[in-house]
Amino acid sequence: MKFELIATAGAARAGRLTTAHGVVETPIFMPVGTHAAVKALGPDDLGAAGAQIVLANSYHLFLRPGHDLVRELGGLHGFMGWDRPILTDSGGFQVWSLSKLRKISDAGVEFRSPVDGSTHFLSPEIAVQVQQALGADVIHVLDECMAYPVSRVDAERSLELTLRWAARSKAAHVGPTASRQALFGIVQGGADPELRSRAARATVEIGFDGYAIGGMAVGEPKPAMYELTELVASLLPAGLPRYLMGVGKPEDLVESVARGVDMFDCVLPTRNARNGQAFTADGPVTLKQARYIRDSAPLDADCTCYACRGFSRAYLRHLFMAGELLSHRLLTLHNVTFFLRLVREMRGAIVAGTFGAFRDQFRARYAVAAASAEPESPAPE
Amino acid sequence: MKFELIATAGAARAGRLTTAHGVVETPIFMPVGTHAAVKALGPDDLGAAGAQIVLANSYHLFLRPGHDLVRELGGLHGFMGWDRPILTDSGGFQVWSLSKLRKISDAGVEFRSPVDGSTHFLSPEIAVQVQQALGADVIHVLDECMAYPVSRVDAERSLELTLRWAARSKAAHVGPTASRQALFGIVQGGADPELRSRAARATVEIGFDGYAIGGMAVGEPKPAMYELTELVASLLPAGLPRYLMGVGKPEDLVESVARGVDMFDCVLPTRNARNGQAFTADGPVTLKQARYIRDSAPLDADCTCYACRGFSRAYLRHLFMAGELLSHRLLTLHNVTFFLRLVREMRGAIVAGTFGAFRDQFRARYAVAAASAEPESPAPE
Repeated sequence: MKFELIATAGAARAGRLTTAHGVVETPIFMPVGTHAAVKALGPDDLGAAGAQIVLANSYHLFLRPGHDLVRELGGLHGFMGWDRPILTDSGGFQVWSLSKLRKISDAGVEFRSPVDGSTHFLSPEIAVQVQQALGADVIHVLDECMAYPVSRVDAERSLELTLRWAARSKAAHVGPTASRQALFGIVQGGADPELRSRAARATVEIGFDGYAIGGMAVGEPKPAMYELTELVASLLPAGLPRYLMGVGKPEDLVESVARGVDMFDCVLPTRNARNGQAFTADGPVTLKQARYIRDSAPLDADCTCYACRGFSRAYLRHLFMAGELLSHRLLTLHNVTFFLRLVREMRGAIVAGTFGAFRDQFRARYAVAAASAEPESPAPE
Repeated sequence: MKFELIATAGAARAGRLTTAHGVVETPIFMPVGTHAAVKALGPDDLGAAGAQIVLANSYHLFLRPGHDLVRELGGLHGFMGWDRPILTDSGGFQVWSLSKLRKISDAGVEFRSPVDGSTHFLSPEIAVQVQQALGADVIHVLDECMAYPVSRVDAERSLELTLRWAARSKAAHVGPTASRQALFGIVQGGADPELRSRAARATVEIGFDGYAIGGMAVGEPKPAMYELTELVASLLPAGLPRYLMGVGKPEDLVESVARGVDMFDCVLPTRNARNGQAFTADGPVTLKQARYIRDSAPLDADCTCYACRGFSRAYLRHLFMAGELLSHRLLTLHNVTFFLRLVREMRGAIVAGTFGAFRDQFRARYAVAAASAEPESPAPE
């Protein structure tokens, strides 16, 4: 994997990530393909939306259909019919958020499958092996996510565990696929700036191909998230990619790019689509509202996606109210297209030296409108 | 509307139906777009599947979002973004099958909406007006569907009502849109050959642009359905299209084309797709079966649809088992493609003079395999 910085604007960066399955231009948003599929979209739709890289969840695929089966069927790329870059997380966040029954020790974490109640064990080594079988281009260390708020003692204990696991994950990242898979470290540390700094420095010291910022958007106030992101980004190597996990709303992407983040993922565009909410440059459109019953305009006049080229808000509202599956596909396609256009426009502005003006215009147009129609908060799918 | 017979093979016919929105080559299968959308498919998918005409349900659209709203938004073609031919039924079948509370009189039928419990009234005149607002290329008379079995007295009473309604529907088919919308009569008569004959003759006497055969596949034995279809088809004008409503399985299409039917619709390919069942030339594939867990083959090696070109049975099974929406789209796309290929192949065989051999080969390959993996029986969506 190679990462090149193309341009900067303050802390904001435009880069180019070259993986075994092609190039990703950053900043980038990664649609979430939980079970090796982005909900309601095919690879054809993803291509049309401008997706360059998708995320898949190791935790879910480990449980069903199993990483060995995925390897047997050509790895994630062959399995899901997507020949461009793929990133997998380690499963740490899902163990923390989805498996109620879990036992964490230095060795690893034991948890129950929400699918069938069976017991499973993940260690840093197993998490890497699972991701080697899945075959993504970017993989992650196993980490422990902390709840928010958390005591200082618990936070320190958790951080030390995450750091020990990070070193073991790196040591396990060997074998025939290691050169084709970039391994990212994950910076934890909770909401405490001092612990976040310690986490960033210690993770960089271990040394990874890129750095994820984990444990954000878990309940801390928005200003704290922005400040912690800025702090951590400032401590990471300039020449390597930075990925803010699970974030976020369009305004979060803009504010985090401004603070030096290169990569994002979030279920917001896909999940909110299934709840009838479309993102537009003038803020979210909530289709169940009666004001759209006779609205012959497209979702977003600025958008060139199939949903906006072919259909009215009135029709999309009708589909949503009637529970038609096509509603999910069209709204998801639009929302993913919107997020990808947003990062593409940010990249263009960084390269052109106009990112400050872009950010001001975005705030004036989108953020004001969004404040009156708050989208749901993200959570794992 | 113009209908031309291109070739025949015994009772089987290859034709060309020219409508205000283009040509339909018969025999044809019409995917069911209940709420002005074929479940899980966009117009882009329908085009890729080879769809030439789709069906929409007046009953559902009358209740939600309302025919006046559809007219305001450009009629069905503009509303749903499908610029090729559309057919609507009159709503009679859905009133009969979906609205438990209904009162039928000579004037029309009063019924409760399953959406919100509100009371509505349909008469032959209103059913035509609703369809004029929807703007389909082929519309239908209001009819009464009979239960199966039914007493002779009830059957005669019902048939006489349907015939009176047919005459009133024709009288209502006037105004600016009448020349752009073909009106089909519906031959009822239940499972009694004598009543079916009477129904066919009396409906033809009223005179329509084409003829639907209604009230089939409602519980009568399969041989009776085939015999009644053959009987009715033999009594209809050779120069006009014949549409067997709500039928059916692939073998029903082949047997009914052999008896002189030109047009079909059925929820089977779309509904069974959502239940994880794919139609193939070797019979249905039920993906929940464990035998497909590691199956790297496509659903149907003979099929060129996106689902078969891009994905394995193992992946499609995984999507279905994980409840992924993409499963519904891909399986529906495949099944609709399969049904449309089947009618296209029948047409080719009729034109080439090889329909008898085609029918024999189909029976030998498909029907034998299908017998061991019976698909679900169709019902309105």
